[in-house]
Amino acid sequence: MSILVVGSVALDSVETPFGKGEEILGGSGTFFSTSASFFTDVQLVAVVGEDFPPQHLEFLRQRAIDLSGVTTAPGRTFRWCGRYGFDLNEAQTLDTQLNVFASFKPQLPPSYRDADYVFLANIDPELQLEVLRQVVRPQLVACDTMNFWIEGKRAALLETLKYVDVLLINEGEARQLAEEVNLVRAAARIRSFGPKVLVIKQGEYGALMFSEGAVFSAPAYPLEAVFDPTGAGDTFAGGFLGYLASVRDLSTETLRRAIVFGSVMASFTVEAFSLDRLRSLEFAEVRERYQRFRLLTAFGDLDD
Amino acid sequence: MSILVVGSVALDSVETPFGKGEEILGGSGTFFSTSASFFTDVQLVAVVGEDFPPQHLEFLRQRAIDLSGVTTAPGRTFRWCGRYGFDLNEAQTLDTQLNVFASFKPQLPPSYRDADYVFLANIDPELQLEVLRQVVRPQLVACDTMNFWIEGKRAALLETLKYVDVLLINEGEARQLAEEVNLVRAAARIRSFGPKVLVIKQGEYGALMFSEGAVFSAPAYPLEAVFDPTGAGDTFAGGFLGYLASVRDLSTETLRRAIVFGSVMASFTVEAFSLDRLRSLEFAEVRERYQRFRLLTAFGDLDD
Repeated sequence: MSILVVGSVALDSVETPFGKGEEILGGSGTFFSTSASFFTDVQLVAVVGEDFPPQHLEFLRQRAIDLSGVTTAPGRTFRWCGRYGFDLNEAQTLDTQLNVFASFKPQLPPSYRDADYVFLANIDPELQLEVLRQVVRPQLVACDTMNFWIEGKRAALLETLKYVDVLLINEGEARQLAEEVNLVRAAARIRSFGPKVLVIKQGEYGALMFSEGAVFSAPAYPLEAVFDPTGAGDTFAGGFLGYLASVRDLSTETLRRAIVFGSVMASFTVEAFSLDRLRSLEFAEVRERYQRFRLLTAFGDLDD
Repeated sequence: MSILVVGSVALDSVETPFGKGEEILGGSGTFFSTSASFFTDVQLVAVVGEDFPPQHLEFLRQRAIDLSGVTTAPGRTFRWCGRYGFDLNEAQTLDTQLNVFASFKPQLPPSYRDADYVFLANIDPELQLEVLRQVVRPQLVACDTMNFWIEGKRAALLETLKYVDVLLINEGEARQLAEEVNLVRAAARIRSFGPKVLVIKQGEYGALMFSEGAVFSAPAYPLEAVFDPTGAGDTFAGGFLGYLASVRDLSTETLRRAIVFGSVMASFTVEAFSLDRLRSLEFAEVRERYQRFRLLTAFGDLDD
């Protein structure tokens, strides 16, 4: 089953305590698609500028990602420049140049319109809804957003959320969107806005998934070396949704496995700059790390 | 099997966004013993002042905690005054009055000297070692400490750690003690100081346990209302060590269950001020929440 994703394809300049990358491949659409492509077919909707290095598109094509929805517009590619301190949990944005992204009006090629799974990466909620309107009865719609839209386009965001099944956001965003500090109560409030499932990403602490009557907690994988957390959230979403699409099932048990696959994929991404770790990643390694997550979290029943 | 614990018995004044408690029962020794008493016999070593309300000692006695090592000294009881903001993870200490604790020289009653399990709560590492010297060949020694001792008495702390099997500290303390930001590497370094097992407490994010060749991650229980996090860490340690002492086994599987029992006990403590939630707690509720932790974290094997 294929996933349609709309998001950014960008050139990032990133500095961490462990090194520096200049104009490296980034963007929510890129991280998501690459991660999801380990599990299922992906159709990407995005825009790049005329300066976008062709080898990056070639990389995505090699991962069998459908690029017929990626347009090249006159001008420069979207650029993001950020820095992380030793606390790798939060990036400090030094510069954002929207460039061709500023006038991005996503138009889905006809072949995309019957997508079953849709991921609306973190872009303007009006554009998210615009994309959704072009898809005919998707089975599952997942969505990400950020403080910028929660503050600046709350009404549009709430409108989009009415049509969203799974919302994936971080802790701070959840509190801000719900206007509630306690995460359990925040989750209940956000689920009342539309999404039946809320996934709260907690960076190095893992993720919480709230669904009807149940909470699931998954840790992040404890790594000896985290090089660059950029893209971890979108990679997580890619693993999560990619796995869901691959098994075509939305049971609680499947959703939980999907969260773990999301965490597994994110744990690889942060081991290197950009998507570099995903370039060499084999699916056997993904499966092996999934089993390590089992060892990391397993403990006995009291009646055993 | 009984646990000997040395720690503080205090009167706390605590303010949280949800309320206020004045001169309520607190102290690391108090929280630890009460929590551990749900699982096993406890022998408490501590000092109180002449102003200490007798009903608090009566409460501990009712929990079958051995108080023959609790002395009453001339002067006032140790007092701590703190405040929490909406981010309940960290207390702001407004005032600390050591009072009788300032000249505390723990002397173990003869009946305490053959304790099998020892918990050295967060006090001066020189006192911790002093207590340890009075116990004849304990089977398991666990210990807590804090930034104040890591900074101010590093040499004494490192000396104490040589004789410690399990160290329980929070994330920031682990990084500070190891002089290493990455937690996996920090854990390896700290384990080279002596403790075979390191438990890193992460507040609302749960706990990580590092032992030989293995890591275990347990979440905190997602609560709709956290009233007062004071004592959560000592309650955690009490559940952890109490369970270990009750089953007399130190296998990996038992250590993991002990971590979950620690998390369970801590999840109750934070639901009310002081030890109030523990006063009414039944062991059936402890077992029930343990099973809820299983539901919270369970996900399937890939081969199922």
